[in-house]
Amino acid sequence: MKRNLKEIISQMTLEEKADLCSGKSFWRTKDIERLGIPSIMLADGPHGLRKQEEGGDHLGIYDSVPATCFPSAVGLASSWNKELAEKMGVALGEESQALNVAVLLGPGVNIKRSPLCGRNFEYFSEDPYLSTEMATSHIQGVQSQGVGTSIKHFAVNNQEHRRMSTDAIVDERTLREIYLASFETAVKEGRPWTVMCSYNKVNGEYASEHPYLLTEILRDEWGFEGFVVSDWGAVNERANGLASGLELEMPATKGVGAKKIIDAVASGQLSEEKLDLAIERFLTIVYRAADNHKSNATFDEEAHHQLAREIARESMVLLKNADSILPLNKAGNLAVIGEFAQKPRFQGGGSSHIKPTKLDNILEQIKQVSGPGTKVAYAKGYRLEHDEIDESLIEEAKKIALEADTAILFVGLPDRYESEGYDREHLRLPDNHIKLIEAVAEVQRNIVVVLSNGAPIVMPWIDKVKGVLEGYLGGQALGGAIADLLFGDANPSGKLAETFPEELHHNPSYLNFPGEGDRVEYKEGVFVGYRHYDALKIEPLFPFGYGLSYTTFEYSNLVLGQDSIQDTETLTVKVNVKNTGKVAGKEIVQLYVHDKVSAVKRPEKELKGFTKVELQPGEEKTASFTLNKRSFAYYNVELKDWHVEKGEFEILIGKSSRDIVLRNTVYVKSSVNLRKRVTRNTPLGDLLADPVLAPILQEMLAQAKRVPLIGDQGGGEASEMKAAMLKYMPLRGIVHFSQGAFSEEMLNGMIERFNRHV
Amino acid sequence: MKRNLKEIISQMTLEEKADLCSGKSFWRTKDIERLGIPSIMLADGPHGLRKQEEGGDHLGIYDSVPATCFPSAVGLASSWNKELAEKMGVALGEESQALNVAVLLGPGVNIKRSPLCGRNFEYFSEDPYLSTEMATSHIQGVQSQGVGTSIKHFAVNNQEHRRMSTDAIVDERTLREIYLASFETAVKEGRPWTVMCSYNKVNGEYASEHPYLLTEILRDEWGFEGFVVSDWGAVNERANGLASGLELEMPATKGVGAKKIIDAVASGQLSEEKLDLAIERFLTIVYRAADNHKSNATFDEEAHHQLAREIARESMVLLKNADSILPLNKAGNLAVIGEFAQKPRFQGGGSSHIKPTKLDNILEQIKQVSGPGTKVAYAKGYRLEHDEIDESLIEEAKKIALEADTAILFVGLPDRYESEGYDREHLRLPDNHIKLIEAVAEVQRNIVVVLSNGAPIVMPWIDKVKGVLEGYLGGQALGGAIADLLFGDANPSGKLAETFPEELHHNPSYLNFPGEGDRVEYKEGVFVGYRHYDALKIEPLFPFGYGLSYTTFEYSNLVLGQDSIQDTETLTVKVNVKNTGKVAGKEIVQLYVHDKVSAVKRPEKELKGFTKVELQPGEEKTASFTLNKRSFAYYNVELKDWHVEKGEFEILIGKSSRDIVLRNTVYVKSSVNLRKRVTRNTPLGDLLADPVLAPILQEMLAQAKRVPLIGDQGGGEASEMKAAMLKYMPLRGIVHFSQGAFSEEMLNGMIERFNRHV
Repeated sequence: MKRNLKEIISQMTLEEKADLCSGKSFWRTKDIERLGIPSIMLADGPHGLRKQEEGGDHLGIYDSVPATCFPSAVGLASSWNKELAEKMGVALGEESQALNVAVLLGPGVNIKRSPLCGRNFEYFSEDPYLSTEMATSHIQGVQSQGVGTSIKHFAVNNQEHRRMSTDAIVDERTLREIYLASFETAVKEGRPWTVMCSYNKVNGEYASEHPYLLTEILRDEWGFEGFVVSDWGAVNERANGLASGLELEMPATKGVGAKKIIDAVASGQLSEEKLDLAIERFLTIVYRAADNHKSNATFDEEAHHQLAREIARESMVLLKNADSILPLNKAGNLAVIGEFAQKPRFQGGGSSHIKPTKLDNILEQIKQVSGPGTKVAYAKGYRLEHDEIDESLIEEAKKIALEADTAILFVGLPDRYESEGYDREHLRLPDNHIKLIEAVAEVQRNIVVVLSNGAPIVMPWIDKVKGVLEGYLGGQALGGAIADLLFGDANPSGKLAETFPEELHHNPSYLNFPGEGDRVEYKEGVFVGYRHYDALKIEPLFPFGYGLSYTTFEYSNLVLGQDSIQDTETLTVKVNVKNTGKVAGKEIVQLYVHDKVSAVKRPEKELKGFTKVELQPGEEKTASFTLNKRSFAYYNVELKDWHVEKGEFEILIGKSSRDIVLRNTVYVKSSVNLRKRVTRNTPLGDLLADPVLAPILQEMLAQAKRVPLIGDQGGGEASEMKAAMLKYMPLRGIVHFSQGAFSEEMLNGMIERFNRHV
Repeated sequence: MKRNLKEIISQMTLEEKADLCSGKSFWRTKDIERLGIPSIMLADGPHGLRKQEEGGDHLGIYDSVPATCFPSAVGLASSWNKELAEKMGVALGEESQALNVAVLLGPGVNIKRSPLCGRNFEYFSEDPYLSTEMATSHIQGVQSQGVGTSIKHFAVNNQEHRRMSTDAIVDERTLREIYLASFETAVKEGRPWTVMCSYNKVNGEYASEHPYLLTEILRDEWGFEGFVVSDWGAVNERANGLASGLELEMPATKGVGAKKIIDAVASGQLSEEKLDLAIERFLTIVYRAADNHKSNATFDEEAHHQLAREIARESMVLLKNADSILPLNKAGNLAVIGEFAQKPRFQGGGSSHIKPTKLDNILEQIKQVSGPGTKVAYAKGYRLEHDEIDESLIEEAKKIALEADTAILFVGLPDRYESEGYDREHLRLPDNHIKLIEAVAEVQRNIVVVLSNGAPIVMPWIDKVKGVLEGYLGGQALGGAIADLLFGDANPSGKLAETFPEELHHNPSYLNFPGEGDRVEYKEGVFVGYRHYDALKIEPLFPFGYGLSYTTFEYSNLVLGQDSIQDTETLTVKVNVKNTGKVAGKEIVQLYVHDKVSAVKRPEKELKGFTKVELQPGEEKTASFTLNKRSFAYYNVELKDWHVEKGEFEILIGKSSRDIVLRNTVYVKSSVNLRKRVTRNTPLGDLLADPVLAPILQEMLAQAKRVPLIGDQGGGEASEMKAAMLKYMPLRGIVHFSQGAFSEEMLNGMIERFNRHV
């Protein structure tokens, strides 16, 4: 329905406008009955709907209305399957309509800077490209149902430690290439209805009152047209926030926020035009929600549960499969060990913690999928509520393991290890889980470990087991999915969206996480995730992009559309992938780009394309990618723009970030001249390397023959030193060393001549 | 002689004063005959005197007057022998007097941030404490002879790449704890006559016009009373330099500098008082030099050569000695291989490159020391002038190695690898040296490698040899010293003043050296050298402080003067060291301090004391150390002062930084209250942790019971999350979450109450 928003706003009092800028309750926006402005409901996500009744607490402690619990973002990202992300989004949209929720608070796209971050399970990846691509599909899926999303937490919110006061200090290039890049495509192409600002400060300013982030980048550069909502309680000074681009404060503040806005308008600190603009943006979305609301919508719980199972199957990653221990035969004696098999950990703690419509019991699902031919014994192995080793439980586990052909150990991180609100302090499993693995390994060689956790763990015990399936936090249908994968009803096709380090101290933020006091410096710069492990040649436990399958794939015929392109053109890349094994499977084809020579330190490789291909045994398909300027560019802080440095770039096709199987080279020409203004401090070598400026300098040097460095270039023992000295000498040095032959005035004239070419 | 400098200055014209602020020639200051102001000479150092005749080039290319070439700083530092550093200083002072040099341009105390820096051989260490202690003794030695020193290059000049234009970006704590600390004690206690500013920028300003460095820190904080001289050609804008604290510009500028000063005074940009002050400081030193000049001074060339040999013996570090291959018997067949044995590399390239009074031939010294009982064969092995492998030289080397009992290989870095002016790009030996080692190892198991190099190399070949003696750049008497050590006439007693990494990419500055364009960010912070290898648990090839001996030492009875001290008190530490071997030897006892818990990230250990003890077989001595506040402090950027955080500190006694043999704990009480002002954004947890503020907060919380986080602390599944949320919630959150129960005004009142205690 078309409305004249400006007309509606003109009828509002200042108080009404100020009042609209904060919530009516914990989850609802304010309405104005006399003007027909409705209240809409926002609800937590993103892997399921957490709709609370009024008076809810936002903490995931109290009950919410049942909804389908899909795998959390870390798992969804491991599917590298955009269609699946979109399908999940559609389902979430349907549930939102059914529960009368207008905006689902997700997806979360913060970069996994440290594996310790307590909220990593809610985020997609350490790589901004993978993250933003998955988020785009998720958003498009939800919004296709007439329900809004709120991409979060904008921005640079990569830890829970002191999250409401810490100041993330990040340089501009890193901000653009890593932390904002994870939002950028999702905002530009996903077009989320809302963006949620984060609690923390970024480079000295609260994200909730950050004009550079909320206005200059989000709206002016990226074209965002929805409204910005605060994370719950993230507002510092309400009027500053509004002036900076924060339209809605949540939750309700009982007039505190409105009063600050009114005072600011009264004092002239805030213009009423700015407030009107905020209201217009806000109402645009409120009416969009109202117009798209479907009355009496319902959703098919069972269909969504099956979708959750499908997604979970693709979300899990087979990390180890020695002696092809998996898939298991549906026969013989099986020992299922670990309390997780009965009380699965299927989601993380905090605002994303939802009440599922139903929940798989893993043990039951194993029995069901393995069928009557398999004898399944169960032992608890440990207690979830604490880390202490219970020897009697261990003995019981050893006993059934000894009698079985294979033992499946369900271990991982209990709820209290990972949550919104705090970070982990180490990457180890609980002591009682480790002890269980070690003890069972004493009596049984055929061990498969199934992990439940939302972020990487270290695995000093890995040599004792033959199989490791990373189940992540698989949602309510995890049990069925795990059983499908263990017995080969489904073929694992997930690959890691994050690096598993061998040791905690290998991770890029180790010395700078979680910061000192309220300051955390991102000193690792762009070298986050695999960019770090590559640059420092550290062997990870499992690299980014890694995952096994029950079949094998062969790559061939990498073809680039051109040998050479202008940076404004696109490049088509094609590669053949063939299933050379005996079962059907899906392969994630990864495309990385490597700038061979660069003026700035760039990663060894960066993900710039991926696609998931389904192949029957013997089948071959061609995967196709289109690269553009951004695929080759870095963010140049002086240009304040993305820039491609001319030269050769390698196109790498990989099964993982550490298993590059094909490579080819393209030459990219730059459309931008980066020549800098010449000053008295420009080194001679810079000028000599420039084909236009070098002849001017040569002329100058001819007048300055008396400079000892310049007059005599005839080799000798110290000739390399002399060459280096000349190269690094600033222009002013010619005056200093010419002993009067070259004057300051001559220098200035020469600089002017150089700069005619800039 | 006492003079009234102000009176002399009052007789000078503005032009005369401006003129005095730059050199008369390449090496001399200006004189004013009518006022009796003499010209003094400055000359390059620091490990020997490079006095050039007028018209010299400052490049080490042209000849200088013969002087004793002592081991370069990297070797001197490896002696950890302050008395020896002082003796060397005395000898340098004597030579300066004999050659009529008033100020010797050294020592160089820049920190070895990267092993690639081309000038590392001129600097002492990666550790500021060791560096500044050695520099202090060096300065005191030289100046005891009435000759000045010029500690250099002030400051943060840790690379040659773009050294005249690069901007070193370093945070304040790192600047203080690492880069300035290397100068600090040497300036405060060594009291050098002059300080030489560096070429580079530091945090945006040229070091030659940096009031914070040249005035606030150097003079106001450290009490420096001499004059600052520019590195040759380091002046950017002369008047800015003078205003910032740079008194003397070198070399001569033929009036360019003077004109800029005169113009600046004329325009009011520079006050004449400031100029007068600069002249007073300058004249103070000029007259001190004149007054201390000894006419007709001479020095004993042979005695200095012997001193150079003594220092060289303590400068070299025995890195490997498998099967006690060293010391060698003075008998049998010896193969001496490598052109270095005939053409030794005994010093580095650049301004420190001097003309020795004589130069040992290593091969001849070996023959002499080993005596008539030893048959010595020689093969060249490689050519120094290039890196190409010469198969015939290799074959010749293999032939004599095959016939010998032991082969001694002289390899290392040729002159062109290391010099002032440029940095290395890798840490490898030349290909022909590596090939030589590998080839000889095919025919001979008893190999001793003697290295000539000024900075760490990697040693992928180390398993092929039994002995490695790091000879560094041993000065003109290196041959005798090497022979003395190889045959046991002297016992190795040097220990590394720098870490040898296993691989280049392990080094702390790897991703940030030498920077991008004219900007190099010191992102590793204080984690330089062993601080980095410790923090990231990287095993170095050889750790800081490491070195072998022909005897063994045992440590016992570590005794601390007190269990607990105030940070304003000192702590005495004593430890016994016993020679438990069969020959006399010297042991370097190292004391490190470790802060067990700290609010800021601190290194695992930091060197805070060392002493070198000489012991006969069976002899035992007590080493004694005195620790003070600085031994426990870090630089607190908010306090703008050194600060000791109360708590337990470990006192570690080590044979090296990685071989800690004894440890004990002292509790240090802080004399400073670090309580910060409370703001609306102070997290509740910070207040709850403060014994004074916590009760006030509790009272406040009692009024805010309706805040859901606060009202219900009764455990449950998410209780850890709730606790964390409360801990990190800012004070303002109480207003937001109290739903009106706690007003903004109540908050402000409470903040005022808190701050009465600050």
